[in-house]
Amino acid sequence: MEEKRTELSELGEFGLIDKLAKSIELKNESSVLGIGDDAAVIDREEEFGLLSTDMLVEGIHFDLSYCPLPHLGYKAIAVNVSDIAAMNGNPEQVTVSLALSNRFSVEAVDALFDGMRAAASDYNVDIVGGDTTASQSGLVISISVLGKAAKDKVVYRKGAGANDILCATGDLGAAFIGLQVLEREKQTFLANPDMQPQLDKYQYIVQRQLKPSARMDIVHELAELDIVPTSMMDISDGLASEVFHLSKNSGVGFAIYEDQLPIDKQTYDTAVEFNLDPITAVLNGGEDYELLFTIKQEDHAKLDKHRDIHFIGHAQALEKGNLLMTKNGNQVPLKAQGWDHLG
Amino acid sequence: MEEKRTELSELGEFGLIDKLAKSIELKNESSVLGIGDDAAVIDREEEFGLLSTDMLVEGIHFDLSYCPLPHLGYKAIAVNVSDIAAMNGNPEQVTVSLALSNRFSVEAVDALFDGMRAAASDYNVDIVGGDTTASQSGLVISISVLGKAAKDKVVYRKGAGANDILCATGDLGAAFIGLQVLEREKQTFLANPDMQPQLDKYQYIVQRQLKPSARMDIVHELAELDIVPTSMMDISDGLASEVFHLSKNSGVGFAIYEDQLPIDKQTYDTAVEFNLDPITAVLNGGEDYELLFTIKQEDHAKLDKHRDIHFIGHAQALEKGNLLMTKNGNQVPLKAQGWDHLG
Repeated sequence: MEEKRTELSELGEFGLIDKLAKSIELKNESSVLGIGDDAAVIDREEEFGLLSTDMLVEGIHFDLSYCPLPHLGYKAIAVNVSDIAAMNGNPEQVTVSLALSNRFSVEAVDALFDGMRAAASDYNVDIVGGDTTASQSGLVISISVLGKAAKDKVVYRKGAGANDILCATGDLGAAFIGLQVLEREKQTFLANPDMQPQLDKYQYIVQRQLKPSARMDIVHELAELDIVPTSMMDISDGLASEVFHLSKNSGVGFAIYEDQLPIDKQTYDTAVEFNLDPITAVLNGGEDYELLFTIKQEDHAKLDKHRDIHFIGHAQALEKGNLLMTKNGNQVPLKAQGWDHLG
Repeated sequence: MEEKRTELSELGEFGLIDKLAKSIELKNESSVLGIGDDAAVIDREEEFGLLSTDMLVEGIHFDLSYCPLPHLGYKAIAVNVSDIAAMNGNPEQVTVSLALSNRFSVEAVDALFDGMRAAASDYNVDIVGGDTTASQSGLVISISVLGKAAKDKVVYRKGAGANDILCATGDLGAAFIGLQVLEREKQTFLANPDMQPQLDKYQYIVQRQLKPSARMDIVHELAELDIVPTSMMDISDGLASEVFHLSKNSGVGFAIYEDQLPIDKQTYDTAVEFNLDPITAVLNGGEDYELLFTIKQEDHAKLDKHRDIHFIGHAQALEKGNLLMTKNGNQVPLKAQGWDHLG
């Protein structure tokens, strides 16, 4: 009898994670929350510990032909810190594991670590351990981050209530459009190696792709303003996909206003240049690592003047679904395209 | 001017780790100990947190042609738990990251997780998070483990004093000789696919290679006997290599007695069958995941009758070096061959 074979692409990344998560039972009292949020939550009596991990694989997550190693190192740390920010926590320690093919020299590893040290310094985390090993093909970076949060300050994906205001930080879609620029320059270079890359006018969006920031500044500002969001996550797979996560976990729907979506002029102009819809880039472009969170209406006034927090919509009854309110007054069901590395 | 290129093999794995460790400064008060022991140590006021990580790469650490996926899953968890055991701590949470090529089906990932769940159950740890991603070549498994220890119970690689007794648990060299058996069967199978593997008489040593145990039982027994070792680590790279680590970290030398080294009869007989020196297998064979630790002389009586703890030597002044006292009365400088995945 032939064994059953189900392709990973049939389930997709989220399907696989769901399946694995359901097969796991938490037994230790200290394990407060397992798989399913931006970080696991661990009871330490006086506070919560936060543990998260991310793996970056050459050829899947990054292309070394246009991603400088220091930037890659910085990004690898930043995306992990972003997971702790998304829980409203503070990162403290990271471990760094590297699988390296012999294509990499000691100098290359040093360059990678230059970026990691810079990010560790920026986010006030310590690199306390890791592993190094050989690889038969490319570079694999696996980072785990340990953080903490006061027990009454930790913010989950669940918790948004109807009429809560949906907020997004920074601007969206830039990392995705930046990637299009880098891919085009790579093709141009491959066709004619004498061509110099033309990146000057795309500096901001290329930077957003290559060296994203974790919004720890927002976490600190919310604490100063004494605001605890009712739900939160980081925007790594695209806004629409993340809205569905908050919706599913919180049991509410969301209405998003197209004219409130934050987009940088360079992102907009370059999207148009590439014949891409800027709003699609905002909704479905990944890797912005901004924060998406909900606040109670009464906290609105405290954030009203904040230059970098945008009120992009509100929570509503689950039955109303997740809707995009377009500029011309239509209501369109939101679609999550997202990023599925196994799909 | 050409850029300098230093091959990773020139530095080797330990050299690279040393270099990276020296470039890192710990800034957070909670970061008690960083790179350089079996786990990082984190201050949690009432107790210490322990954080460690291990990466397993297909083609480097395992060969799926003879390593069943459930065994691999079990081993991946066990080797991480072993790092917490080596600090005299208790593991509590793990995260599991997987890079998977499309060669792997959902059923294959399930089989891998069967082993992980079994190990999680055996060692009382919870799988609380992770990451799944695509891979262009083989399987990469990265696991991080979080544990804890009472502040007065954590045991480092440093701490051994002259005249302390050196102890090893279980028996050594079995995993290495088991690997030789598996490699031979693979070659036989490749030459003639109709041949069935002949593993019956090698069951113990093959099991030691494919599904090693973390010695949490020893950690618990030491606690019951109220013994805190003066130094400890797990034996993953081979006894000799680990003795040098304890020596370097503790600032003492060691004398090891050849006739006290624990070896299973099956390991011995099979080593002879393969024309390998059984003592070399014990000293330099890796992956046994037994514990190597030192105790004060006054604790000797408490462990004297223990069936699975062997007194293999003692610490001495650093100037005396690390010596093997052979059966015929000679003193031979100990040599560490060890396992260098980048070498």
